[in-house]
Amino acid sequence: VNVALLGFGTVGQSVARLLVDSTAPLRLTHIFNRAVARKRVDWMPSDVRWTERMDDVLVPEVDILVEVVGGLDPAGCWLRQAFAAGKSVVTANKQLMAHEGGELLRLAAQHKVHLGFEAAVAGGIPVIRAIREGLAGDQLQRITGILNGTCNYMLTRMEADKLSFDAALKEAQQRGFAEADPTDDLDGYDARAKLCILARIGLHVALRPADVPCRSIRPLTDIDFIYAHRLGYTIRQLSRVERQTAGSGPAPAVAASVEPALVRRGSVLAGVRGSENHVLTIGERGGETGFSGRGAGGDPTAVAILSDVLAIVRHTSPPGWFREVADDRPARVIDEHPCPHYLRFVVRDRPGIIATLATRLAEHDLNIDAVLQESGWPKEALPFVITLEAARREVVDRALDEIAPLDFNVERPVSLPIVD
Amino acid sequence: VNVALLGFGTVGQSVARLLVDSTAPLRLTHIFNRAVARKRVDWMPSDVRWTERMDDVLVPEVDILVEVVGGLDPAGCWLRQAFAAGKSVVTANKQLMAHEGGELLRLAAQHKVHLGFEAAVAGGIPVIRAIREGLAGDQLQRITGILNGTCNYMLTRMEADKLSFDAALKEAQQRGFAEADPTDDLDGYDARAKLCILARIGLHVALRPADVPCRSIRPLTDIDFIYAHRLGYTIRQLSRVERQTAGSGPAPAVAASVEPALVRRGSVLAGVRGSENHVLTIGERGGETGFSGRGAGGDPTAVAILSDVLAIVRHTSPPGWFREVADDRPARVIDEHPCPHYLRFVVRDRPGIIATLATRLAEHDLNIDAVLQESGWPKEALPFVITLEAARREVVDRALDEIAPLDFNVERPVSLPIVD
Repeated sequence: VNVALLGFGTVGQSVARLLVDSTAPLRLTHIFNRAVARKRVDWMPSDVRWTERMDDVLVPEVDILVEVVGGLDPAGCWLRQAFAAGKSVVTANKQLMAHEGGELLRLAAQHKVHLGFEAAVAGGIPVIRAIREGLAGDQLQRITGILNGTCNYMLTRMEADKLSFDAALKEAQQRGFAEADPTDDLDGYDARAKLCILARIGLHVALRPADVPCRSIRPLTDIDFIYAHRLGYTIRQLSRVERQTAGSGPAPAVAASVEPALVRRGSVLAGVRGSENHVLTIGERGGETGFSGRGAGGDPTAVAILSDVLAIVRHTSPPGWFREVADDRPARVIDEHPCPHYLRFVVRDRPGIIATLATRLAEHDLNIDAVLQESGWPKEALPFVITLEAARREVVDRALDEIAPLDFNVERPVSLPIVD
Repeated sequence: VNVALLGFGTVGQSVARLLVDSTAPLRLTHIFNRAVARKRVDWMPSDVRWTERMDDVLVPEVDILVEVVGGLDPAGCWLRQAFAAGKSVVTANKQLMAHEGGELLRLAAQHKVHLGFEAAVAGGIPVIRAIREGLAGDQLQRITGILNGTCNYMLTRMEADKLSFDAALKEAQQRGFAEADPTDDLDGYDARAKLCILARIGLHVALRPADVPCRSIRPLTDIDFIYAHRLGYTIRQLSRVERQTAGSGPAPAVAASVEPALVRRGSVLAGVRGSENHVLTIGERGGETGFSGRGAGGDPTAVAILSDVLAIVRHTSPPGWFREVADDRPARVIDEHPCPHYLRFVVRDRPGIIATLATRLAEHDLNIDAVLQESGWPKEALPFVITLEAARREVVDRALDEIAPLDFNVERPVSLPIVD
């Protein structure tokens, strides 16, 4: 079986190594990259063809295309060309699979070729295969994940060593866990793409990335970890999607979000450290099942890709029956169940602030569970925390929108859901 | 696709429910059980045939046999008959797969039929598929598991509520987590079978159950948890298999064991509670990957079985290429690397005991790391603990064989490896 590799960056090089070293009946025949001349390495067998032209790759001798270029365009175009030419594809492209996965899977099936995307979610953790095939006999209700290694690395560094947000980000960048522009990671867009893919294969719904509310981890400070610990919690970026039975409307309804949240210390999610990823599924029959491991990096991602390639080698024809998305209309994302909230304020202290906040919150029927104030901070920028009893997110947001402009606030209050 | 079910106990009934409710192109056609008349249930479609005769099941219309009877014989015979008749098989039979898995997989391949055994290891956790296919691109070095829900339930009950061993066993039996004869669970034979299956699919070695040393959890008492906690550890029944590079002999060499061990509190394995199962793999490229979930019970096991059945429905022909066991000679189980040990004594106290023990241990080149003695126990049955620096298991055992007969011992000393 002949394999062509599109993209020769970190992941592409790891994939090439694995293909060259593999004892399986596989041969790497083409490497496609822009400005390919500067990419050549001496350990590559001399019969591998280096090229900058896609046409060189879409030749009859190539059986499988491995795409590790990323981005929607032109990758999506290449995949469609590959299917039309009867080639199977293995991709690590999470944005492409999140945005166009439904159509691409349908096209692959029409052309009777394989489309593997294990590497698009949670790197080396075989969670796509495990959910799509290993849990195929169950009905999943909910998927919760720690899907972004950059955020988790930063949050656990802030937690463990009281690093500031900026110091944690700088360290993550120095260690190669964060990009020069970390927006996709910090603001949740990376995790959101992975969540949409998991929603498709696990809950069988078409969840559009743009419909999933994302909250950034940027407003978090080391103060939030101090207060979270005092409450028995820590903070993780959680990606969640849950089937909603209430919504019996025209399209399937789900609750979905990507956001920092308080998770109980000692829980499985709190135990996810560093750049590790974790996926938890809740099934109607099988209950809670968890998957953990390295979420990124050249080698773990390359393992996922090679595993997909081997699956294609094993099965000459692609799977003939999958329970895919029943209703391809975009899922309606509805407000999830009420949950307790953590609100953190930084104020110029003066008498009457708590009374004002309590009044404003009460006007929205929000019940205060506790008020926490650690000593030792300056009166001109005093951080303190109010926890709320279970309430709907949108109500909390509305209250905070009213409270944020009040003159005692030094910065916009931070609100985090408390997940148990 | 027509499915026949062999065995209508707890798991069989859950499987039948799932098959009857499934929206997949599947039909349950036969139920085979001894004394089948007393098994009939009213929710079964009337066209399902109930039988006590294997010949009724080996008819042309049946495509897939689901075997949930258990035991080596006659189950192994039935599987061979099924293969010969061109039928695919899905089994939950761990002992059969552990003892005869190599031959059965070879036979299934010869007859070009599927053999699914996801349900044989770790119930609802899709660890077979995840390792065999999802991690196929990696070279696994080591697999560590908490594979027996009964032991883990008992150990976590002893840990959390200071239950005695007998009280924990009784509670496990009352709650349906332990059999009336708990030997297979407590003494490690159940976990050992699962470990041998994992060794085959993950490390590609033929590990014979009888070659894996097992140690029972029976000698443990609540006292061991008190001392383990004081050291920063807790106790779990661990099943471990690791490829040994040193052994470049005639057959592949592994370290393998099933035994109670000290694991650090706060670690992933210490966090496995109740009847949950957990499997950790260490791969050369992908690093550590973890799988957790419900290890037993009708519904999780039935999910694993239905998932295997669906995989057969999806793929008309079985996988054509798998990296199976390269060398079918039984793996040599060699003594593993040295590790620290926990030794717990119960003695009739008198002066000179520590000196005697220190001398005897020193004669075997065993270095004492610490001596721990909590107050409040009677002098005529005083428990205390010695921890040893890293040493080989067989050396520790030899020393204890000499120490055990000394007249101050009230019971045989307990030795547990300390795993970090």
